[in-house]
Amino acid sequence: MDYDIEALKLHESAKGKISVIPKVPVDSHEDLKLVYTPGVAAPCKKIADNPEDAYKYTIKQNFVAVVSDGSAVLGLGNIGGLAGLPVMEGKAALFKKFADVDAIPLVLSTQNPQEIIQTVRAVAPTFGGINLEDIKAPECFYITEALQDLDIPVFHDDQDGTAIVVLAALKNALKVVNKDSSARIVIIGAGAAGIAITRLLVASGAKNIILVDSRGIVPKNYENSDNKYKEAIAHKINPEEKTGTLADALQGADVVIGVSQANLLTKELVESMNDDPIIFALANPEPEIRPDVAISAGAKVVATGRSDFPNQINNVLVFPGLFRGLLDARIKTVTDEMKLLVAQTVADLVDNPSPQNIIPRISKEVSDVVAQAIKRKK
Amino acid sequence: MDYDIEALKLHESAKGKISVIPKVPVDSHEDLKLVYTPGVAAPCKKIADNPEDAYKYTIKQNFVAVVSDGSAVLGLGNIGGLAGLPVMEGKAALFKKFADVDAIPLVLSTQNPQEIIQTVRAVAPTFGGINLEDIKAPECFYITEALQDLDIPVFHDDQDGTAIVVLAALKNALKVVNKDSSARIVIIGAGAAGIAITRLLVASGAKNIILVDSRGIVPKNYENSDNKYKEAIAHKINPEEKTGTLADALQGADVVIGVSQANLLTKELVESMNDDPIIFALANPEPEIRPDVAISAGAKVVATGRSDFPNQINNVLVFPGLFRGLLDARIKTVTDEMKLLVAQTVADLVDNPSPQNIIPRISKEVSDVVAQAIKRKK
Repeated sequence: MDYDIEALKLHESAKGKISVIPKVPVDSHEDLKLVYTPGVAAPCKKIADNPEDAYKYTIKQNFVAVVSDGSAVLGLGNIGGLAGLPVMEGKAALFKKFADVDAIPLVLSTQNPQEIIQTVRAVAPTFGGINLEDIKAPECFYITEALQDLDIPVFHDDQDGTAIVVLAALKNALKVVNKDSSARIVIIGAGAAGIAITRLLVASGAKNIILVDSRGIVPKNYENSDNKYKEAIAHKINPEEKTGTLADALQGADVVIGVSQANLLTKELVESMNDDPIIFALANPEPEIRPDVAISAGAKVVATGRSDFPNQINNVLVFPGLFRGLLDARIKTVTDEMKLLVAQTVADLVDNPSPQNIIPRISKEVSDVVAQAIKRKK
Repeated sequence: MDYDIEALKLHESAKGKISVIPKVPVDSHEDLKLVYTPGVAAPCKKIADNPEDAYKYTIKQNFVAVVSDGSAVLGLGNIGGLAGLPVMEGKAALFKKFADVDAIPLVLSTQNPQEIIQTVRAVAPTFGGINLEDIKAPECFYITEALQDLDIPVFHDDQDGTAIVVLAALKNALKVVNKDSSARIVIIGAGAAGIAITRLLVASGAKNIILVDSRGIVPKNYENSDNKYKEAIAHKINPEEKTGTLADALQGADVVIGVSQANLLTKELVESMNDDPIIFALANPEPEIRPDVAISAGAKVVATGRSDFPNQINNVLVFPGLFRGLLDARIKTVTDEMKLLVAQTVADLVDNPSPQNIIPRISKEVSDVVAQAIKRKK
């Protein structure tokens, strides 16, 4: 693809998409005496006496690591940490652009959850927050949970960042079609995003959710000792205790949220849904169904992950501003309450939701508003 | 001290001495499509197919982590990783200033050698090189050695960076006093720097070295199962098998290199040395002896770690240029041969060594020359 060629050219000529630069003068010997030895001993001593002073005298106050083992990168799957580095670098660039956060990629040679946890613990003093990225389920749930006792926020964007943006868009989409929390929602895909979306929709009050994986509807009595996160959420949803195929799940549904794979949704499946169906086809880069096909099958609102269609569900709407707020307010844990607040904040940025306008476009202003909301929360 | 106040003010107002900025445009949606999804998938796939391509498409080619557990920071001792962060940040700023290397601090919550090794291994894919910093002996030797099998260079600056600069200065100092490799050299301090200096001087051909620690002369038959590095080097030096105190060691010595503590050297001790003694008093910030006192006791050449006296022995002369060369030439291990070459290169930068001019002043040019030497070596 020409597009690939252009992207490769950009990456090769850039020699890295981010750069680390001094913010203080380091020109004269006098400068060096303050920035480095012997002057640097003064802040060191302050921090040794009072660890909180690290936030006063160092980059920790504004420093985020984008940590990935590369086990679930974009639609590419498990390509490993090193191959995921361009994504993490890109994310670091966006952190700066949209929220003035200094972020660096940290890609790992290990995919062992225990080793990932140990590594993040080991480097944690350096940072004011950790953005976990592109770690596959169910490991990502275990890793994120285990790290919540750190004294800095640890947030897996593919889980909760995605869930927040989806909820924001869904709030407005339901407004457009005059439906509410009783809407029947089908979520396709039980990976990091699918399970996190399900969890957050439950927390938001959604009453009728069916989760579908590659084997069909996840039954209410689902058991899986290897994935207790999926098991736990399965027990909380599917009030009608449905079983069967994806087609069975979609019959009469109001909303379908796909975080699965390209072209999984057909015209016929959309036609089997309730009136004014809402379709979030979020597989990347090729959605579960093309918007024009969905519309022709009767869909009222369609969203995708792509910027070349209306209603782009993009995590950039949330992660920069969220971390800006977390850093500024020195928040140690991202609670469900905060996630719901951010989702509402983003939804509220759309004045008059309409079928082609349920979610704001990405901008520095969106990040600012999200950051302010988080800071007020505290 | 007023100086401390100024340093604290600078650190507080800077809010971090380094910043991470995008090097590529991230303004329009078109930009984002190349820098982030979907365009970023192209370099990811290339690297997944051929890991070497990470050097072509990512920051890895120019990215160095300054890793510390804070167990031996400046003259402050074991203040821990977090309290060492201002030093590592400062070092990152100098990396950029003197050699255009993108470097970040990575301070650790652990001081367990095995955990430090595991952590560096885990994050290694991100970086083109690792600068270990301020890790105490003997752990630093074990850690540095254990990490030499990584496919990126791992260099503990407090060991070998210091040793290289000391050797460079010593070469010129010996020239000034018309002495050679048979000079009797006393090294005070058997920590990271002391042992690394001893090792490198041995490799450079120095024939008569005595190492002194807090208990006096380290005997030729020294045994210590907890510090095999010190034991190994002890067996290679001290050809006259001397024992006794620091005073015994200095009697008739040609050179003393102190990497120990303030004010350890007296006028009388210097007077007991051979004619035209060379004094490197490198304790920071207060040297083992003040230059004026040493001179009045007959010292011919005096060097310290300070920029307010002549002959500043400063690692900044070496580490930025060394890493520039290592990165550009994609060198995986820093050999003794390279260390000796860099020492000679730095020494040669002084045209006509004189008592007050045995080592060049810090500058971008010094880094350039060091980098070129390393690149030619390969």
